[in-house]
Amino acid sequence: MKMLINVAETVVADALRGMAAAHPELTVDVENRVIVRRDAPVAGKVGLVSGGGSGHEPLHGGFVGPGMLSAACPGEVFTSPVPDQMVRAAAAVDSGAGVLFIVKNYTGDVLNFDMAAELAEDEGIQIAKVLVNDDVAVTDSLYTAGRRGTGATLFVEKIAGAAAEEGQPLERVEALARQVNENSRSFGVALSACTTPAKGSPTFDLPAGELELGIGIHGEPGRERRAMMTSGEIADFAVNAILEDMSPRNPVLLLVNGMGATPLLELYGFNAEVQRVLTERGVAVARALVGNYVTSLDMAGASVTLCQVDGELLRLYDAPVKTPGLRWGM
Amino acid sequence: MKMLINVAETVVADALRGMAAAHPELTVDVENRVIVRRDAPVAGKVGLVSGGGSGHEPLHGGFVGPGMLSAACPGEVFTSPVPDQMVRAAAAVDSGAGVLFIVKNYTGDVLNFDMAAELAEDEGIQIAKVLVNDDVAVTDSLYTAGRRGTGATLFVEKIAGAAAEEGQPLERVEALARQVNENSRSFGVALSACTTPAKGSPTFDLPAGELELGIGIHGEPGRERRAMMTSGEIADFAVNAILEDMSPRNPVLLLVNGMGATPLLELYGFNAEVQRVLTERGVAVARALVGNYVTSLDMAGASVTLCQVDGELLRLYDAPVKTPGLRWGM
Repeated sequence: MKMLINVAETVVADALRGMAAAHPELTVDVENRVIVRRDAPVAGKVGLVSGGGSGHEPLHGGFVGPGMLSAACPGEVFTSPVPDQMVRAAAAVDSGAGVLFIVKNYTGDVLNFDMAAELAEDEGIQIAKVLVNDDVAVTDSLYTAGRRGTGATLFVEKIAGAAAEEGQPLERVEALARQVNENSRSFGVALSACTTPAKGSPTFDLPAGELELGIGIHGEPGRERRAMMTSGEIADFAVNAILEDMSPRNPVLLLVNGMGATPLLELYGFNAEVQRVLTERGVAVARALVGNYVTSLDMAGASVTLCQVDGELLRLYDAPVKTPGLRWGM
Repeated sequence: MKMLINVAETVVADALRGMAAAHPELTVDVENRVIVRRDAPVAGKVGLVSGGGSGHEPLHGGFVGPGMLSAACPGEVFTSPVPDQMVRAAAAVDSGAGVLFIVKNYTGDVLNFDMAAELAEDEGIQIAKVLVNDDVAVTDSLYTAGRRGTGATLFVEKIAGAAAEEGQPLERVEALARQVNENSRSFGVALSACTTPAKGSPTFDLPAGELELGIGIHGEPGRERRAMMTSGEIADFAVNAILEDMSPRNPVLLLVNGMGATPLLELYGFNAEVQRVLTERGVAVARALVGNYVTSLDMAGASVTLCQVDGELLRLYDAPVKTPGLRWGM
């Protein structure tokens, strides 16, 4: 598999150099692998730190900036960052108002953020944590005890980020982040495997004419394989899988997320089908976001995330944000 | 090749339904295939209309909105829209201040926009046209007499769009668009072919271990094939090819554009290498934009576009824009 890289060993460092060159509004510490908004720490503001394996861009580094994350820690591709990165990030963004760690539910991430929380607290930084586990596809998986954290991470980071930007206190920002996660469910499908730079060949074998339903964001197995389905059939399957697990009474935020290699032309067509199913099921869509946000390198496929919102969550979602990957209102 | 579609025949219509569902701020006429900003026509404002074959998203439909295009006309995949779409778009956005057609240099687009200009003028709409032909890779190509129009289209639409939004007259908006095109050069590489829905198999054969230098955005042939190169070697080749054709004395806008299937992680790494070469060559970068903007379905690869800017062009580039694909300042 051909890649636009130098060598596999420097892929993450090269990408960080490129982010630094493209985004002077961020402070990118290439050596220590921490991306921080340039004006951090902001006086009186709760800091938001997330991170995880690389290969899901723009998540998380592309969501650093006013109204969203204060800092992100990228690990190697599909590999958790280490506690030292997280402690560094927390120290860089803490204004004394405390720091919220936003952790996707993968075993390595959970362990390392736990350790980092202890170390940061030893340094006198108040830490809260929220676990994102929105993927209804499987209960446990290759890298997870419990459900995986996927598309809902964007909504948690956006809404908690808006609350922090307004100066809300740590307990409130944490409670909102937890509520967004509890209100969110996701389901993804893969039409092709992805290829990590280190391996250089597809991470799993998906035969021609088949798709994998319930895929994660690292190529880990999903629920089942089937003969290829149409966009409409996939939308029915994904939305129904989500609605077996939640019954939204309020409108939802909808994320129709590309896994990386699926053209935007197809993602918009898929959005039409997803919204058709939601209409049939009586679920109102307050906002829809369509594009590549929580990716899996060059995997073809898409995921659907629904997040039930009341007026306050919607207001915070709509609040201004200025990051490389998500931007409106400023 | 698996795709997230219903059937090939409805791909464009399905995508337009999905755009309509995701973007209530746009008026999407699915039947007639015209995407218009909802508040058009804006009193006293020059209208900007572009269009071309589908498969390059977010170009052009994703660039409709305040500060950029007034309307876009999507054709079938890699096929020019028809004059009727363009006339409809012009009529929808003309406030009496006239309409600028922004046309990428492909034979079908040029012919159809020419015919549409005559028809629109017969209806009393003042039309100006600008041709985008920034690709230095080949002189003529499969679909082109003269150079192809590629990444510079984004800069033309952004800068002319900002001028129109300020209320500048048609002659001035046209002159700016022409200047941006003249100041811009692009060069692209493909690591894989793309697959159109109608064909269902790759549009050309690119052997394992080879890349194509100087590729267009439809899989049309480039300059030459070589054994696979590193990101740094590709950056050297692409930037040098551009600088053989221009000698920027002013800073440049830089677009590091993904062709569709290349992960953002790789695009940022490539940006680091492109900016290294520019620094070595003494070219200052005023702004850098990294991501998938002018794509070629699921092709892997990237293109580099430079646009030399003075203070006024930079001011217009920085002006607020609110479209699905490009947004800042509002």
